[in-house]
Amino acid sequence: MTAAPRQLHLNAFLRNIGQHEAAWRLPETELSGITDIGHYIRLAHIAERGKLDAVFFADHPVLKDRTEDRPFDALDPFTLITALSTVTERIGLVATASTTYNDPYGLARRFATLDHVSRGRAAWNVVTTANADAAANFGLDAHPDPNARYARAQEFLEVTTRLWDSWEDDAIVGDKEGGVFVDRDRIHTTDHIGSHYRVAGPLEVPRSPQGRPVLFQAGSSEPGKDLAARHADAIFTAQPDFDDARAFYRDVKQRARELGRDPDHVVILPGLSTFIGGTEAEAQALQERFENLTIPTYGLAQLSRILGTTVEAGDLDRPFVLPPGLVNSPHQKSRAELVERILAGETLTVRQLLRRLSAGRGHRIFAGTPEQVADTIEHWFSNEAADGFNLIPPALPSSLEAFVDHVVPVLQKRGLFRADYAGTTLRDHLGLERPENQHTLRRRQGRAA
Amino acid sequence: MTAAPRQLHLNAFLRNIGQHEAAWRLPETELSGITDIGHYIRLAHIAERGKLDAVFFADHPVLKDRTEDRPFDALDPFTLITALSTVTERIGLVATASTTYNDPYGLARRFATLDHVSRGRAAWNVVTTANADAAANFGLDAHPDPNARYARAQEFLEVTTRLWDSWEDDAIVGDKEGGVFVDRDRIHTTDHIGSHYRVAGPLEVPRSPQGRPVLFQAGSSEPGKDLAARHADAIFTAQPDFDDARAFYRDVKQRARELGRDPDHVVILPGLSTFIGGTEAEAQALQERFENLTIPTYGLAQLSRILGTTVEAGDLDRPFVLPPGLVNSPHQKSRAELVERILAGETLTVRQLLRRLSAGRGHRIFAGTPEQVADTIEHWFSNEAADGFNLIPPALPSSLEAFVDHVVPVLQKRGLFRADYAGTTLRDHLGLERPENQHTLRRRQGRAA
Repeated sequence: MTAAPRQLHLNAFLRNIGQHEAAWRLPETELSGITDIGHYIRLAHIAERGKLDAVFFADHPVLKDRTEDRPFDALDPFTLITALSTVTERIGLVATASTTYNDPYGLARRFATLDHVSRGRAAWNVVTTANADAAANFGLDAHPDPNARYARAQEFLEVTTRLWDSWEDDAIVGDKEGGVFVDRDRIHTTDHIGSHYRVAGPLEVPRSPQGRPVLFQAGSSEPGKDLAARHADAIFTAQPDFDDARAFYRDVKQRARELGRDPDHVVILPGLSTFIGGTEAEAQALQERFENLTIPTYGLAQLSRILGTTVEAGDLDRPFVLPPGLVNSPHQKSRAELVERILAGETLTVRQLLRRLSAGRGHRIFAGTPEQVADTIEHWFSNEAADGFNLIPPALPSSLEAFVDHVVPVLQKRGLFRADYAGTTLRDHLGLERPENQHTLRRRQGRAA
Repeated sequence: MTAAPRQLHLNAFLRNIGQHEAAWRLPETELSGITDIGHYIRLAHIAERGKLDAVFFADHPVLKDRTEDRPFDALDPFTLITALSTVTERIGLVATASTTYNDPYGLARRFATLDHVSRGRAAWNVVTTANADAAANFGLDAHPDPNARYARAQEFLEVTTRLWDSWEDDAIVGDKEGGVFVDRDRIHTTDHIGSHYRVAGPLEVPRSPQGRPVLFQAGSSEPGKDLAARHADAIFTAQPDFDDARAFYRDVKQRARELGRDPDHVVILPGLSTFIGGTEAEAQALQERFENLTIPTYGLAQLSRILGTTVEAGDLDRPFVLPPGLVNSPHQKSRAELVERILAGETLTVRQLLRRLSAGRGHRIFAGTPEQVADTIEHWFSNEAADGFNLIPPALPSSLEAFVDHVVPVLQKRGLFRADYAGTTLRDHLGLERPENQHTLRRRQGRAA
């Protein structure tokens, strides 16, 4: 028997009516989609028709600046994926949630419940929240710095992992005759007393179909990579450049190996926005259609934020010159480097640079035919730069539909992507094992010793 | 034109496989229902077929004592009603959530999202959490006393009410040509700095279909009644006795009137558990079927808790004598009084008393034919004791099915209950108006002045 060929993993990262800042201005875009559950159900059904691994939602527990220029995510992502759980069958459901602005018991309880409700399709994308404005919505004087946030996140994950193991899989006895509902010896307290949290436990939710939800991690900083290598089942990362993506891929896999983990069990998924056309020229024309609708004040505000200095509007057709001695805020560092890299290769006017950045400021953008999109996906996948991609459609539903209808069949024909789901849980789709309950494991090891 | 006759309001309070402590031991009970979403979908569909106002779920952010003797609610109620929102059309969705163990921004965000997702059917049953053991799951040294909890709750509700009004209804301009997505002057910060919370706002969720979720309140203490009269759209209350229920009803309606509110906009719903049979004897036999399966150790533990003193098992067939000088914990006071009242009327053995309390320790229990159940509902409804009931089925789905199939048609024939939903939102079902946005109101009043 030969080993099954390695398969791509593809998620749909769904940002209301699309990731591109000008998507909302396209005549065909339905703005009601921002808050309309019908829109999100339609997107989930398209993704499930395409046999994608999961739909994936970002989290912003604060209203962002310059909402007048574009819509942002308006709905709570956990609530959204829960609503989608009963109208989908197989697709995984990933919600981002912050360890900085949640409590471990409440969050563990909600995700365990969703894992039951979705019959094993729940995933949590663990973030520490980069937007400093969020602090003021949660009674904090200041946003904690990255090291403090990641220290909390490590402890938060230790607590939730213990909470999710509160009930062993055989805890429910259900002996109606004898009048014994559960075996109390199979339910375990948490007894966590740490630097940031004290949680007694046990969780009141019986162990869920996947044992615990799949854990995604997003963020490519040093503490982010460390958290990912320790705890994450999968990583969502911004990698616009092939060589950098390879270096990142090898780094994370190596860290996992050093921690005694199977590197195949840390699935690495860079973001990818695609403009798809019947010909290359059509794809580029499609991208230009979006760029022509960008609002310069919005792009300037974003660019100023990335560079840590105010970029004046002035004459938009003047050549853009990088200000010397950039002052970068830590979390925008990789985005500032991206701007540097673009400008190292060519001279652009301010307007041209803003257009170039309009589809997203960090993730990879690609315009081409379905075959060309499949080629670049295969190239990254076959050369240790990615295990798959978090697809970031510029406009929704149209860009997702184009990918599912035109690129997925090419990938399937090449034997790179599943023709149908083989299992029922998100762990099945991602090739991850169901983790054994730590108490069951300890008891079994004790017996063997 | 004559005024429409006053109509009953009926919710289904769904406690996994039933409220009765022995429901799980019935041979026909499917224990998988405790965590199986299919079970809850089935219950919601039965309730919606019966045109009930809402399904209603309790909240216990802690695993209760003596889980070995009976199942408790295992799933997070907010997650559960969200999952039900996309597989139901009209029925209201009420989740209990604690002001003691949530943060106002996160909770306001989730409920506003659910109100969008359910198209105006979300309700929050506001509680402060009576179970002291919950504190240890949230890092607190001790459970706050009732006054402290209600002080937080008042402030919590002020904050969430402001957050839900962040966006005026006309904030989204959606001017694609002009490149203006929202009118920032129609989005308002919260700027709350109080004794317990500091929340900057605005909420990032646009105003929801119902303006804000319907607010239920549960708890009949003095601060509970005050909170209800100020903020609640509806009240869930334990009222086993008709005269007490009338006194409570008049008290709360009067408080609302004094606060300048329309008393019809505070809907009072006592709990009611029914055993329904074709004849009175059949109904009583059904109740006995449950009582015969009770587990004395469980009942003794509950009775000890209520009375604040350990009741020894001993000879279960000895007459039960109330210990003199009862030491009651505050939140069990009404339940201890119920025990006193039962024993004032008759002499019972320990076993008999435990059986009598097994269907619930506070809410009203009634066994009878469909006509008799309809009679008592009508009696309370027509005599200022109730605006309707929170139905508490002893076993699920069977007791809910019996009510919907046999009692609802009688109530409909009498003209007391809707034959079909007239509106689409829970506010429509409850006869509540959509609250005006406070900023819109202020601007309009400013213009008129």
